[in-house]
Amino acid sequence: MSSSRLEAFSDGVLAIVITVMVLGLAVPKGDGWADLLHTSGLGLLTYLLSFVYIGIYWNNHHHLFQLHPTVSGGVLWANLHLLFWLSLYPFTTAWLTETRVALVPTVVYGLNLLGAAIAYSILQNTMARQPGGERVREAFGRDLKGWVSPALYVLGIALAFIVPWLALLPFIAVAIIWLVPDRRVERYLKAHQDAPGEDDAA
Amino acid sequence: MSSSRLEAFSDGVLAIVITVMVLGLAVPKGDGWADLLHTSGLGLLTYLLSFVYIGIYWNNHHHLFQLHPTVSGGVLWANLHLLFWLSLYPFTTAWLTETRVALVPTVVYGLNLLGAAIAYSILQNTMARQPGGERVREAFGRDLKGWVSPALYVLGIALAFIVPWLALLPFIAVAIIWLVPDRRVERYLKAHQDAPGEDDAA
Amino acid sequence: MSSSRLEAFSDGVLAIVITVMVLGLAVPKGDGWADLLHTSGLGLLTYLLSFVYIGIYWNNHHHLFQLHPTVSGGVLWANLHLLFWLSLYPFTTAWLTETRVALVPTVVYGLNLLGAAIAYSILQNTMARQPGGERVREAFGRDLKGWVSPALYVLGIALAFIVPWLALLPFIAVAIIWLVPDRRVERYLKAHQDAPGEDDAA
Amino acid sequence: MSSSRLEAFSDGVLAIVITVMVLGLAVPKGDGWADLLHTSGLGLLTYLLSFVYIGIYWNNHHHLFQLHPTVSGGVLWANLHLLFWLSLYPFTTAWLTETRVALVPTVVYGLNLLGAAIAYSILQNTMARQPGGERVREAFGRDLKGWVSPALYVLGIALAFIVPWLALLPFIAVAIIWLVPDRRVERYLKAHQDAPGEDDAA
Repeated sequence: MSSSRLEAFSDGVLAIVITVMVLGLAVPKGDGWADLLHTSGLGLLTYLLSFVYIGIYWNNHHHLFQLHPTVSGGVLWANLHLLFWLSLYPFTTAWLTETRVALVPTVVYGLNLLGAAIAYSILQNTMARQPGGERVREAFGRDLKGWVSPALYVLGIALAFIVPWLALLPFIAVAIIWLVPDRRVERYLKAHQDAPGEDDAA
Repeated sequence: MSSSRLEAFSDGVLAIVITVMVLGLAVPKGDGWADLLHTSGLGLLTYLLSFVYIGIYWNNHHHLFQLHPTVSGGVLWANLHLLFWLSLYPFTTAWLTETRVALVPTVVYGLNLLGAAIAYSILQNTMARQPGGERVREAFGRDLKGWVSPALYVLGIALAFIVPWLALLPFIAVAIIWLVPDRRVERYLKAHQDAPGEDDAA
Repeated sequence: MSSSRLEAFSDGVLAIVITVMVLGLAVPKGDGWADLLHTSGLGLLTYLLSFVYIGIYWNNHHHLFQLHPTVSGGVLWANLHLLFWLSLYPFTTAWLTETRVALVPTVVYGLNLLGAAIAYSILQNTMARQPGGERVREAFGRDLKGWVSPALYVLGIALAFIVPWLALLPFIAVAIIWLVPDRRVERYLKAHQDAPGEDDAA
Repeated sequence: MSSSRLEAFSDGVLAIVITVMVLGLAVPKGDGWADLLHTSGLGLLTYLLSFVYIGIYWNNHHHLFQLHPTVSGGVLWANLHLLFWLSLYPFTTAWLTETRVALVPTVVYGLNLLGAAIAYSILQNTMARQPGGERVREAFGRDLKGWVSPALYVLGIALAFIVPWLALLPFIAVAIIWLVPDRRVERYLKAHQDAPGEDDAA
């Protein structure tokens, strides 16, 4: 089965998750800079952070399915599992913002990030075990980045119990690490001069 | 006519239905675990349930149109009819949650699930009667699962009149039955070594 | 230029317009049938009506671009113009519902329907005047249905000044007229055995 | 890498941004023309303005990726950067409307427009520097329009400090300039009789 419809559906969910988060931004009652900063300042920062995460997942998802554009029933559900965690971002981001980075909301936000990271690993492994999955295995063989993210999320959750704001440091670090574009797939495809077929062009 | 645009439109509606349900999740006023549990606990559970249903419909829809990728005017409307019922999920899920599983909202939720199941049957039958529909008829010949779901929804609606919470048991059972991936289409395609044509690649 | 991206964008907007209207449905405060009927009864009816309109536009849009799958800059803007009117449906539907079909909101709703119908005519004419547009001209030559709809909308707006509810009769009549699937494009394509080319498969 | 999925994702975000802005339109409490004018009149105007901007970006984006349908990791992030600015339109448009065009919200709206314009330039330049980017460089060589827009946004921001409403004049001027369809890409493609390949048909 071709992955094109799975990709389209995932794109739709991610596009909406991003945009729905903006709906969570409270519009200031007043009309001054102080109102904007006070009502929406933190919200804009957490929105930016969650936007970057969604962008990272979209980029990685895009790369992953370019390596391996056919899917089985197991991949369909592994993908829906990932989308479930990502669809909760607007909810946990809103709670984090409205409580001004209190302890429990920070932990819950971290657990949401962690859940999505684990779901992404499951998706990648499910695809690697499929027929044709050796391309995924080779390209992501020493998947250092894939392990650093969950570790940093766990660190953030732990730091939250000291001072909740501290948790944001490792969370932000993950975003920065991934913003450096992941060239592994491009390098792999170039090295093998082996495009995944006409499916990609469509 | 090719089904690609029908699929894209359906994907869009389903993706938005899923994400819109998250907007219905009330963000806790307080910042403790008890606040989360009390304000959003039930909402997260009903969201998960409705998410799984939408995921199931998306998977089945995906399989159905892979078997039979051309559509007539009748299929367009049968599909819109299904989307209408699915688009009501955020509304009935929200009412179910806000009334903490009261009698009438549970019955209405069950009727919504039942309406979508019937609409899906109509869609499948409409496609089976089209030219080329014998593939659909053969793959879904003894469609046990297709009959068990409506029966369980009716059972749930009946149980709601005893204790509303009881209705959730058959509703959850449907989700679990379908989570076991439906291999009929994959098996059929493999058995016939007969891919639905270049349409799929696109 | 190929119309595929224009179609995808339009599908996205229409899918969201449909789903956003559900967000406008007020969830009943109470948990009885009377609460549902009183809070959401009218809203469900107007939602159904607007859903059918959007479905009709989607179907017709789909048929139109199958006849003529290349687009110029003028078509891009004629299409955006149509989407603008359609994007206002959630707003005018909500006002109609919340005022329980008062005079001015009914007139505004009718003007919104009329605006979309005119925008659709402009789009169709823009495409008919393009190179290759003779297919559109031939298929929609005696466009009776295309003229009946605006006439009925104008009639509805006029009737609203007698009793607002009366306006709904011609509005509903338009929906019923179009629900009978438009076989003109299918008939034309069959008669000419002249599929619009490989673009469709994609 | 093919740009098709990047285009689909961008279409999704833009389609939702447009539709989400309608959610920001307050539905009048009363049911007269005065209520509509007072509650929603300004909102409808700012919605129309922001709708036109999004339409312009969609059109230009569409043209840009038709010239150069392959993308690198850098383009993915330049595109996400643009989408970030565009996703803020519903927020800044709502603030502008609710404060009835006060000073700071007008400046913030102008900064949002400016940010999107700069992000678009970055995207265009990133694509021009890629292998195959000479097509982009040639088509947009003397990019007068691309420089006029930011200049008018800056002018608008400056005028806001005199009278906020004045800022809307240059903002509206930008919309009008771009509404005149950009024929450069069509002209370039015609001159070179050099379609970007089968990718476009898909």
